[in-house]
Amino acid sequence: MTETRLTLDEVMDLALAALGAAGADVTNANAIARTMWRAERDGAKSHGLFRAAGYCGAIRSGKANGRAAPTIASQEGAVIRMEGDNGFAPVAHMTGLPALAALAKTQGVAALAIRRCLHYAALWPEVETLTDQGLAAMAFTSSPPYVHMAGGRKRVFGTNPMAFGWPRPGKPPMIFDQASSLTARGEVMIAARDGHEAPQGAGVGPDGAPTTDPKAILSGAQSPFGDYKGAAIALMVDLLAGPLIGELTSLETGEQDVGEGPSIGGQLILAFAPERLGGADALAHGERLFEELLSEPGVRLPGGRRAAERSKTPEEGVLIPTSLYEEIRELT
Amino acid sequence: MTETRLTLDEVMDLALAALGAAGADVTNANAIARTMWRAERDGAKSHGLFRAAGYCGAIRSGKANGRAAPTIASQEGAVIRMEGDNGFAPVAHMTGLPALAALAKTQGVAALAIRRCLHYAALWPEVETLTDQGLAAMAFTSSPPYVHMAGGRKRVFGTNPMAFGWPRPGKPPMIFDQASSLTARGEVMIAARDGHEAPQGAGVGPDGAPTTDPKAILSGAQSPFGDYKGAAIALMVDLLAGPLIGELTSLETGEQDVGEGPSIGGQLILAFAPERLGGADALAHGERLFEELLSEPGVRLPGGRRAAERSKTPEEGVLIPTSLYEEIRELT
Repeated sequence: MTETRLTLDEVMDLALAALGAAGADVTNANAIARTMWRAERDGAKSHGLFRAAGYCGAIRSGKANGRAAPTIASQEGAVIRMEGDNGFAPVAHMTGLPALAALAKTQGVAALAIRRCLHYAALWPEVETLTDQGLAAMAFTSSPPYVHMAGGRKRVFGTNPMAFGWPRPGKPPMIFDQASSLTARGEVMIAARDGHEAPQGAGVGPDGAPTTDPKAILSGAQSPFGDYKGAAIALMVDLLAGPLIGELTSLETGEQDVGEGPSIGGQLILAFAPERLGGADALAHGERLFEELLSEPGVRLPGGRRAAERSKTPEEGVLIPTSLYEEIRELT
Repeated sequence: MTETRLTLDEVMDLALAALGAAGADVTNANAIARTMWRAERDGAKSHGLFRAAGYCGAIRSGKANGRAAPTIASQEGAVIRMEGDNGFAPVAHMTGLPALAALAKTQGVAALAIRRCLHYAALWPEVETLTDQGLAAMAFTSSPPYVHMAGGRKRVFGTNPMAFGWPRPGKPPMIFDQASSLTARGEVMIAARDGHEAPQGAGVGPDGAPTTDPKAILSGAQSPFGDYKGAAIALMVDLLAGPLIGELTSLETGEQDVGEGPSIGGQLILAFAPERLGGADALAHGERLFEELLSEPGVRLPGGRRAAERSKTPEEGVLIPTSLYEEIRELT
């Protein structure tokens, strides 16, 4: 595979050009391109330029609104409800996250419920926008169903990720962002394409029996991580990003929207003001915990790999497959 | 093993007598006894009368305040901060949970942060008190360290449970309450006592190598469920029930407080008003999801086993080991 090296500025320009050509307005193109840019900057390739064709295709087909103007439908108590206007989630985040951060700082804890958006990215970028404000944060979203329930074999849950972040003054935040499935959907698809086995526990075939055959898993169902405990997390995410905020469950998304591309649904984001809950020492206290954890050989904090990449890519740029580069160039 | 059958009233009376004899006042004894009673009623034996000696011993030794008068230190925005007065958590819940429920109904989402309490029970009782009010809820607490970090072998986290509940009008709620460790601490201890193997993945020996020898795990560390993803959950729980609310981390609890009994620390409880976030259809929507899930053979919802027991024990009573019955009688 030949690769092409791009500077981070070139990544941004390429993404902007492709989105603009697909019909996104400047606001939408900027929000989406910056999400891909952040992923490339942090070495999170599966959410970087790899997604450009998916974003552009959904805008071209009209499934996603490339001129979305998300609105804050209500702000009452500690809850902000947004309507995403069928745009990609990062567009809603542009106005929603600053409002959520301000509300969490006055209320101590606050929730942002976004309806009618397409979430086609990782969750850590929005969490990091909040940790940058000194807030702890959680985020939840669901997707079309690929994952079975504990004791079941039917696809009922999306890979239903949840993310949690904790601010570290002067350092990259601690953020984990993990699917409720054992493996990412893409990992199973790549194993099927390349003829490799999927990891033990990755899924079941159509007969419900555990298998490492990725093709059987793709026609069966992926398994939750950690057996019934991960399935419980998947169910929680389905409820939080669905019925709790008046949005679709994974099953409903699957009925309305099949295929591997972006799908419409909801997102719940929670923000916590540590100084309001725990006092002025809260973040310094977190640091003492992290120092203890990191004093053990072999231990690193979630998000550490992204932070390491981020220290290099502004100078080194990023490598993307030349075929991907050319594919995106054709979109522009 | 001979067993003794008790009615649920007898369970309550026995617990009350033991706690009273240990020096608990009526309020404290009632709150704690009712927590053991709820566990016995629901077949959750490990948190039932089995814990009576632990509660009473901690009160007798002065480690726990049997005459605790927890107070609401502040209520600002969407956050209630309580001081537990070194009492057991259920005593703080008596005033804290109604206040949290009321606040969540006005704010949409609210948090209850309890400092200086001893949490020696399951988390589902407090979550269910909130689902009984039509609220969704989460709860987090930490404990002395038994569990290693991903990539590590040192004990750094408690079994750090989290619970999530969703109300089901006219039905028992959906509630999961799960440790961040693969197995409960007690399960490893019982395996060691009885000469059985611990489950695969339950822990590592002092050398850091995975083992199913329960004695090696007890001198080494328990493993998180689901590998690094469960470890991330354990870390989140440690931050939420610790630094976020001005309380001890698991490591700090371990430094100050060794042994298997109750330990002092904090608890964070979140409550969400579905109708405020998702509109009037939220709970009916949840029911449609549960119906779909339950239509698959072999699938049950978290908490279903407790609900099944609860339908029987008011008539049938509960069986406890006669030796346990006599041990508690001696406490009275």
